[in-house]
Amino acid sequence: AGDAAAGKNKSASCLACHGAAGKVSVPMYPNLAGQNALYLEHALKAYQSGDRSGGQAEVMKAYVSGLSDADIADLAAYYASLKP
Amino acid sequence: AGDAAAGKNKSASCLACHGAAGKVSVPMYPNLAGQNALYLEHALKAYQSGDRSGGQAEVMKAYVSGLSDADIADLAAYYASLKP
Repeated sequence: AGDAAAGKNKSASCLACHGAAGKVSVPMYPNLAGQNALYLEHALKAYQSGDRSGGQAEVMKAYVSGLSDADIADLAAYYASLKP
Repeated sequence: AGDAAAGKNKSASCLACHGAAGKVSVPMYPNLAGQNALYLEHALKAYQSGDRSGGQAEVMKAYVSGLSDADIADLAAYYASLKP
């Protein structure tokens, strides 16, 4: 499993859309706080692989393209650790 | 916006994976309770259109293929109305 503290340090570029506490102000984007870490890892990898494409998925693809599996695990652990 | 009560009546086939209160027991799947309705509509339509493909997205595609836009709006309103 990932390291939530390390994930917090890597979440700077996520804040703009997903909010400081993982709760968005823009209803088009998902709240991430308290989401399942395994699901978040799956989703991030789907954006990287192109399994998720079109529309706002292309925005996510740009953000996650440079992430390592460890980054993804840490970010997933961080958001899963937040209170929904 | 959708009708949450109507959405509840249409959520029978969602329960198996997403749980009775929109909180899953299988961490591979997303919790839906309290998620943003607009995002949920977006996600369901992405499964229908194939913008989300591969792996478990194919399972979702089978479940949502028969849903109308009104069904999608109602289901999204229902899960957004649940306490995360």
